[in-house]
Amino acid sequence: MNFKIVAHTLGWVLSFEAVCMILPLVCALIYSEAAFMSFLICIAICLAAGVPLILMNNKDAKMYSREGFTIVALSWIVMSIFGALPFVISGSIPNFINALFETVSGFTTTGASVVADVEALPKSILFWRSFTHWIGGMGVIVFLVAILPLSGGRNMHLVKAESPGPSVGKLVPKVRETAKLLYTIYFVLTVIEVALLLAGDMSLFEALTISFGTAGTGGFAVLNSSMGEYSSYIQVVVTIFMIVFGVNFSIYYLILIGKIKTAFRSSELWAYLGVIAASIFIISINCAALFDTVAESIKHSAFQVGSIITTTGFATTDFDKWPELSKTILVVLMFIGASAGSTGGGIKVSRIMILLKSIVKEIKISAHPKSTHKVKMDGRTIEHETIRGANVFMISYLLIFAFSLLAVSLDNMDFTTNFTAVAATINNVGPGLARVGPTQNFGSYSAFAKLVFIFDMLIGRLEIFPLLVLFSPYAWKK
Amino acid sequence: MNFKIVAHTLGWVLSFEAVCMILPLVCALIYSEAAFMSFLICIAICLAAGVPLILMNNKDAKMYSREGFTIVALSWIVMSIFGALPFVISGSIPNFINALFETVSGFTTTGASVVADVEALPKSILFWRSFTHWIGGMGVIVFLVAILPLSGGRNMHLVKAESPGPSVGKLVPKVRETAKLLYTIYFVLTVIEVALLLAGDMSLFEALTISFGTAGTGGFAVLNSSMGEYSSYIQVVVTIFMIVFGVNFSIYYLILIGKIKTAFRSSELWAYLGVIAASIFIISINCAALFDTVAESIKHSAFQVGSIITTTGFATTDFDKWPELSKTILVVLMFIGASAGSTGGGIKVSRIMILLKSIVKEIKISAHPKSTHKVKMDGRTIEHETIRGANVFMISYLLIFAFSLLAVSLDNMDFTTNFTAVAATINNVGPGLARVGPTQNFGSYSAFAKLVFIFDMLIGRLEIFPLLVLFSPYAWKK
Repeated sequence: MNFKIVAHTLGWVLSFEAVCMILPLVCALIYSEAAFMSFLICIAICLAAGVPLILMNNKDAKMYSREGFTIVALSWIVMSIFGALPFVISGSIPNFINALFETVSGFTTTGASVVADVEALPKSILFWRSFTHWIGGMGVIVFLVAILPLSGGRNMHLVKAESPGPSVGKLVPKVRETAKLLYTIYFVLTVIEVALLLAGDMSLFEALTISFGTAGTGGFAVLNSSMGEYSSYIQVVVTIFMIVFGVNFSIYYLILIGKIKTAFRSSELWAYLGVIAASIFIISINCAALFDTVAESIKHSAFQVGSIITTTGFATTDFDKWPELSKTILVVLMFIGASAGSTGGGIKVSRIMILLKSIVKEIKISAHPKSTHKVKMDGRTIEHETIRGANVFMISYLLIFAFSLLAVSLDNMDFTTNFTAVAATINNVGPGLARVGPTQNFGSYSAFAKLVFIFDMLIGRLEIFPLLVLFSPYAWKK
Repeated sequence: MNFKIVAHTLGWVLSFEAVCMILPLVCALIYSEAAFMSFLICIAICLAAGVPLILMNNKDAKMYSREGFTIVALSWIVMSIFGALPFVISGSIPNFINALFETVSGFTTTGASVVADVEALPKSILFWRSFTHWIGGMGVIVFLVAILPLSGGRNMHLVKAESPGPSVGKLVPKVRETAKLLYTIYFVLTVIEVALLLAGDMSLFEALTISFGTAGTGGFAVLNSSMGEYSSYIQVVVTIFMIVFGVNFSIYYLILIGKIKTAFRSSELWAYLGVIAASIFIISINCAALFDTVAESIKHSAFQVGSIITTTGFATTDFDKWPELSKTILVVLMFIGASAGSTGGGIKVSRIMILLKSIVKEIKISAHPKSTHKVKMDGRTIEHETIRGANVFMISYLLIFAFSLLAVSLDNMDFTTNFTAVAATINNVGPGLARVGPTQNFGSYSAFAKLVFIFDMLIGRLEIFPLLVLFSPYAWKK
């Protein structure tokens, strides 16, 4: 393990975090909030820890796969620990485990909260809370790769470890240019959403925080009712943008460079939209009796489906009161998740498609053992490595799920709460059902259970492997 | 597809079923029950359908993989449909879907029931109900392979399709001799259990039915309280035998031929016993307050753990009232299941071990990409085919689980009930939690949901593939 390159990169991560905290600092200044001092202190702490690490010599820095995994895993842990400080220092969330839960939930774009009354928090703290979604959505390492002259051409290991999905599609041959393009698309789409929300008479503060939550597919809201009190126009805009941010960003790149036909030939895109359409259709019929008009039923179904499949977690209604079929559809959507290469979590549509195709292949082989078959997607053969990776992902995912479920059941909450709480954290969704439903929060769980959820959120966001490698003895052996 | 060989084998299955019904017929005679006539009629029906099929010419019978899968899948479906007739004709379970549910639950050794008051049923019907467990436990095709001169050396395809576990270990080079050995061990162990139960002052009727339920890891009891009213001696005997029947039968063969050291070197055996010991330990502490003495707590924990991990499903206490940790452990045990090559269901301990080892291998490769690693078990390299098979099994299993959960949620029962009901049927356990807990039954589900459960039980017992192949167009194409 090359510790110098690890330390050097962590230094940049902390300094970047200090820069990020300038925005909530400005927010505190505007609203003349006492939290201003807290952010000032936190910026100083991040720089004090980060700058010396940057200055460490890393001339012989060689970065291989294990350094990549380790850097990404440690970056997210360190970033979360320092990111929790404003909550603690400002006194908004005095308990450190709670503050860490909230920060990890923010960066991993989960949106699960321990705060019962968010409206009581200072605006600058709410701003920071929502801004962590935006930072975590596209990934902090991806950002650093885009702007920093990190060690040469080996950054692919880093981007690979942080990017969601079964395989990383480079938009352009150079990793750095790919990272820049991704962030540009991300930024522009966010700006468009802010503009549309402002057009719906939202305040700039709300337009920004809600857009951060949508873009990162996070789900932290600034009102206790989540999105329930906003106008239909705002709810529809957010529905559309949640779904937009759950699409593979390479589709937008293809559209940008004029390859519109290729973009719309993506089978993942159609599968993703198909699942959304089918779910909205079934739920709006199943829940028709709960709403005054058919339009209302469709609007709420679409919002909740978009929110859950993209693993955002906003809510316009208490879906815990929906009929069981609709609730079960939402639970299944939590697992499916968004597209690969989007800001969403979950298993990812394309990973599920690859696994499905490998089953069909196996059935064909069982029926005709001598025939040969290849797993293909969008005309290209899926490499054996990718299929194996998807399988290993699923098995590790299930094991971590089972152990988490056992661990949190110590709190003696009911099965539905525990199951959906683990599902909502490992898939980076946010709310679950029953006692972690959209009108509830994770505050009633013990500190131990919260640590389990923190682990699950990180595992979910980084798609398991970086953390497994970090905690395995093999990574540290010569 | 070679239809002649399929029809011919189905003929033998039906005739075999007719022979099996002689036992409950005798039982009806002894207790002078009216069900005697029902069994006589059913025997006649089975023979009338079966014998002509046997007589069909099958000289050119070639059996390949797809014929094997088709025969096994169809055998189990046909056997269940005809096996349901005694329940319907005798009027014990007049509704055909209910009777089919009960029969499939019997043959697949699930033990989930739609009957609220089993004590009200005629003894001969209860005998048939329990006997289906014994027939299904080791497999009807395995039995036919043992006794019939079926088409030459190609029977491996059949045994492979019916036997549980990631790979079929032949005890001896010849398939037929292997099948004979398996049935001999099965028969002898059952006789020993019957003898021990008789020694505990049980009636022959109860000793036989309970032994059938234990040996097949089924779980149909003859009292409404399941095993709750029996003496501690009986409960302990059944605990031990449930665990015994959940062990890979090749271990018993190794012991028989004196290779005791090799037998006890099986890592699956130790993993299986280890999970059982750990679960009993945690549950007896977690549930200590519910019982008068520590010994009682250990006894009930051991019984329930043995019953659930082997997917038997007997109960001595209402574990639905246990603390959440204990209940969650039981739910996890439902999925783990028994050993490969036993009569138990679930994912199987060895399959989970293979998958675990493949994750460790992947972590090693991630940390050191240039190193090479092989997945090994008990000193032997696990073939790539087996690992791929285990992965495909898991993915198909999850998909079927998700679709089943969605389908049964139409009945609007709560999530815990639906989730554990699907888990209890697809893993061939029997009882679940909440409204399908050990003191409840599946009777309150709709006919549609019952059909879903019937499919899940068959899928679980045949480990998915035979049924998937049967329903796929690829098997029927030239």
